Amino acid sequence: MVSKKLVVEQERKMPLVTDVQVLKDLATRIRILSIQSTTAANSGHPTTCSSIAEIMSVLFFNTMRYSVAAPKDVSSDRFVLSKGHAAPALYAAWVENGLIPEPELMKLRQLGCDLEGHPTPRLNFIDVGTGSLGQGLAIAAGLAYVSKNYDNIDARTYCLIGDGESAEGSIWESIAFISHYNLDNVVLIIDANRLGQSQPTTVAHHLEVYKARLDAFGWNSLIVDGHSVEDLVKAFDNASATKGKPTAIIAKTYKGRDFPDIEDREGWHGKALGKETDRVLKHLEGLIVNKGKLNFTIPSPVTRAPQVNISNIQLASPPNYTVGDSLATRQAYGAALVKIAQNNPRVIGLDGDMKNSTFSELLKKYDPARHIECFIAEQNLVGVAIGATCRDRTVAFVSTFAAFLTRAFDQIRMGAISQTNVNFVGSHCGVSIGEDGASQMALEDLAMFRSVPGSTVLYPADAVSTERAVELAANTPGVTYIRVNRPATKIIYANDFKFQIGKSNVILFSPKDQVLFIGGGITLQEGISAATILAQQGVGVRVLDLFTIKPIDREGIIKNARESGGRILVVEDHYPEGGIGEAVLSAVAEVRDVYVKKIAIPRVPRSGTPSQVLDYYGLTAKHIVNYLLDAIKN
Amino acid sequence: MVSKKLVVEQERKMPLVTDVQVLKDLATRIRILSIQSTTAANSGHPTTCSSIAEIMSVLFFNTMRYSVAAPKDVSSDRFVLSKGHAAPALYAAWVENGLIPEPELMKLRQLGCDLEGHPTPRLNFIDVGTGSLGQGLAIAAGLAYVSKNYDNIDARTYCLIGDGESAEGSIWESIAFISHYNLDNVVLIIDANRLGQSQPTTVAHHLEVYKARLDAFGWNSLIVDGHSVEDLVKAFDNASATKGKPTAIIAKTYKGRDFPDIEDREGWHGKALGKETDRVLKHLEGLIVNKGKLNFTIPSPVTRAPQVNISNIQLASPPNYTVGDSLATRQAYGAALVKIAQNNPRVIGLDGDMKNSTFSELLKKYDPARHIECFIAEQNLVGVAIGATCRDRTVAFVSTFAAFLTRAFDQIRMGAISQTNVNFVGSHCGVSIGEDGASQMALEDLAMFRSVPGSTVLYPADAVSTERAVELAANTPGVTYIRVNRPATKIIYANDFKFQIGKSNVILFSPKDQVLFIGGGITLQEGISAATILAQQGVGVRVLDLFTIKPIDREGIIKNARESGGRILVVEDHYPEGGIGEAVLSAVAEVRDVYVKKIAIPRVPRSGTPSQVLDYYGLTAKHIVNYLLDAIKN
Repeated sequence: MVSKKLVVEQERKMPLVTDVQVLKDLATRIRILSIQSTTAANSGHPTTCSSIAEIMSVLFFNTMRYSVAAPKDVSSDRFVLSKGHAAPALYAAWVENGLIPEPELMKLRQLGCDLEGHPTPRLNFIDVGTGSLGQGLAIAAGLAYVSKNYDNIDARTYCLIGDGESAEGSIWESIAFISHYNLDNVVLIIDANRLGQSQPTTVAHHLEVYKARLDAFGWNSLIVDGHSVEDLVKAFDNASATKGKPTAIIAKTYKGRDFPDIEDREGWHGKALGKETDRVLKHLEGLIVNKGKLNFTIPSPVTRAPQVNISNIQLASPPNYTVGDSLATRQAYGAALVKIAQNNPRVIGLDGDMKNSTFSELLKKYDPARHIECFIAEQNLVGVAIGATCRDRTVAFVSTFAAFLTRAFDQIRMGAISQTNVNFVGSHCGVSIGEDGASQMALEDLAMFRSVPGSTVLYPADAVSTERAVELAANTPGVTYIRVNRPATKIIYANDFKFQIGKSNVILFSPKDQVLFIGGGITLQEGISAATILAQQGVGVRVLDLFTIKPIDREGIIKNARESGGRILVVEDHYPEGGIGEAVLSAVAEVRDVYVKKIAIPRVPRSGTPSQVLDYYGLTAKHIVNYLLDAIKN
Repeated sequence: MVSKKLVVEQERKMPLVTDVQVLKDLATRIRILSIQSTTAANSGHPTTCSSIAEIMSVLFFNTMRYSVAAPKDVSSDRFVLSKGHAAPALYAAWVENGLIPEPELMKLRQLGCDLEGHPTPRLNFIDVGTGSLGQGLAIAAGLAYVSKNYDNIDARTYCLIGDGESAEGSIWESIAFISHYNLDNVVLIIDANRLGQSQPTTVAHHLEVYKARLDAFGWNSLIVDGHSVEDLVKAFDNASATKGKPTAIIAKTYKGRDFPDIEDREGWHGKALGKETDRVLKHLEGLIVNKGKLNFTIPSPVTRAPQVNISNIQLASPPNYTVGDSLATRQAYGAALVKIAQNNPRVIGLDGDMKNSTFSELLKKYDPARHIECFIAEQNLVGVAIGATCRDRTVAFVSTFAAFLTRAFDQIRMGAISQTNVNFVGSHCGVSIGEDGASQMALEDLAMFRSVPGSTVLYPADAVSTERAVELAANTPGVTYIRVNRPATKIIYANDFKFQIGKSNVILFSPKDQVLFIGGGITLQEGISAATILAQQGVGVRVLDLFTIKPIDREGIIKNARESGGRILVVEDHYPEGGIGEAVLSAVAEVRDVYVKKIAIPRVPRSGTPSQVLDYYGLTAKHIVNYLLDAIKN
């Protein structure tokens, strides 16, 4: 008697669309190209490429459904090479499938060649930059979440990580996320080649350890011979047939596989083969059975993704506040997120179990399907957002306490390399949060986001400007960051005020201003109060709201500084380095005769009520009055 | 017939040193104090405190061996409250054991009171600041690694995390690290109260899921009733008796336990009880059986830790290089690390599987016991180092690629709050690494480390200054960061040159200098070449090596700028924000009539050979000549 389960297994035929020997030969070709290109570059990771050669061959020439002519077709299966240092193997697959001319690969790592040391979206077949380990699986989760829940297509996402890489906690954040959301369209492949960079991994080839861990995190997991194309074909088929949970394929491999006297040896990480090249290539060429052109079939995508339009995002209704009323900018963020979501079905929000504090829960209340709860795992939170925005499928806003975005600095940094358009919103910035104390106060967030290449950093001071900041961010390429406050701040702008990225706004001025005040959020509000007090004493203070910290309004700052005696006072709820003060200094660096006085939080702050700590650290109007009077003396 | 295992279990008596009912009453007292203090503060997390009340009672009044009179006695067991928002319950334990006067706790969260919203080492019984979740277990790992491997004492480290917190990948990095190194002196307690901030956790009360995960990661794990003092006593005893693997106690608890109509309900996270206070307090007071003073015993430490001296760390031998020779500063770092290790047995090195690139492997070769391989898990790497330095037990140097230190920004940020003295060394900074490309190039590391309060940031340009930077960092309080280069750079300093923190060094000067050049590492070297070229053309360029980017030599910069026509050119291998350029701008902010021109990497860079990319991004001498000539026109 045969059990039902066994019958089902027997019924599943080995899903080969390319001949087994051709797959083996393609794996060898991938090894050969990886060696040739890294030897030509005199750097790179050929042994790392070799351990994944069969995995790449089976995925790219049998299993994955994609189009060589349209590498980023939104209906295709996705592939994320999380272990980005194996880039030449990935490039080699795209040489063999015909997209990249082989001579181009021999320019690997040369200046001007987009085939860089690690993959980036400068290449038309790459979704995200990889190379900082442990980040690819979160991207894959984002890609798969969109395919399954928004695009509703049968597209699978394959993510290849290294075994050493699985030590990264971010991997386990993603493993938990993927199983929690039943993303059975994700296939994780662990290239368990036993060797890290400088020594063996902790698990080495005890692959049952990975299996137990993955099973415990709710995955279907399989241990396979990662150098057997037959085993791999079957394993990927098992993954496709497994519904309701994601599949992990734990591939036992050897670093430098088929490189005689190099395979499975320590000391060969990240080294071109140099004088060993010819010897190894000769051996590899001898392994190829089909000497001529290799005949393979690449399956096509099976379902069509809907067309979407994520351009020209607008608030469904303009801001509707009254000057002088008060509202926390974090709350205005939540309101604005709903307004742009009302106008475009591809606007989504992601949070790290802070949605009732960041007000992203307003989106969840409006449309639960477009709010992705990522729990307390900020690295995965950011990675999922980056994945979700790939191929222009969504407009994503990530929110949590600004302080906790530091947890994902590496992901955000890589996001810039990935040319991501994710929008970040950090709440509870600065000492103005009060009682919770230093661990919850973001005082380095502006420094962090300013240092991200191509970023746009917005710091709206009231609810009106916050709503417009959200609208502008949604339409701005690259990483954007909006800093919002916990306490309520007064509405200072009219509802119809026109905001622009990179354009500051003069809030108070007189013809005889003696100093230019620049603040952000709370300190801008306090500066307005201080200037108002001094105006009554006949001292003219110009008040400028930068609105955008980056790109900064250099011309506006210089013009207003010159009209205010060449004196600038910057007061910010941030550490002294990298924030508004230094942004302003950079703007006036090449201008002589401008004096800049900076006030910031000089050390780790204390708990207290918001008004107590703001006063204690000298950020309130009464202190600003004194700074302004001092500045005028210079 | 009774199995041997069962006999052993029967032989273990319930290790009670305090009466069970007293432990229960102490738990209730902890609840009462948590409510009273948060109600007084009108903020805080009383329901979070309530779920851990029995855990705290049993740990602090029965299980942990410590001294109330000497809360940071190095021989004591350690406790890390990773879920720092439960701080009032921890403070309450120290009220009940007599350290803190009860009225002091009623000043919770008030400005000037060290009983802040989250714990910090401003309190004499706290090792590290917590409050950014997921970080405590790495600290515990560092504490336990030192107790077990360096101090050789029977001190156990208890770490209490929340269940929501267990979603943080950093927790799983630490879980893997602790079992890999058989730290059986670590006891992890998961307060599984089912509720996160904004919704239930993914695992909720399915505690067998945690158990399966922990078992798969090599731990001894137990599920217990977290509100049963008897169960907890037995579980901690089991942990003490378990050798060769760490123990995790998965405590089933309820948020707001014993708060009628609040217990186990959503919507009560992070809220003082307000008008519910009296009602709940009345109920709790009714639960106390022993109405008078509670009699308890706190066990004493059982072994004595050795005395150690980590002051006045010196190189065992002075730098021994020849001006004009070349060596990578990363290699000089490794050499210097060995030299200070030769002179002090408490110098240790930690790395993230990069030791053959960062040259920390030189320490491993010198003394394997003092090199801690943390594998590819940078968050845990940093946390372990912070833990290892607590109570002045070690001088720790953490090294990896500078780019990957961004992975631990949140840990480093919290390190400053923890008043840590960990020294960080980031290698492979800037585009000068060449072929590997943008993902491996640190171009925001100076911005990151400058923004850390109280940090010292060193950027040595040659091997001599690198050795001295290591020596100085070892003796400098607070977070220090040393930026080192991958390529070799020329020795420019004599071996006996005296370096100081915060003191810049003039490398080239003439009486008629027209511009001041400031660079770092590679760009300083290129600037020297450029200045030498221009000197031959009769153009005087002063070259300044800042050596310390923070604290910056404000006086030195201003003096030399004034002597050089009030013109400064800064060229740096870093993004434009937050690096050397902005540090210099901050130094001259309040000085009128200084022109500063900044050159940096303006966008995500490309792969290429180091010389190609340095030239492409304009950081080489030939470009610097032109910048200098341009600067002189201003």
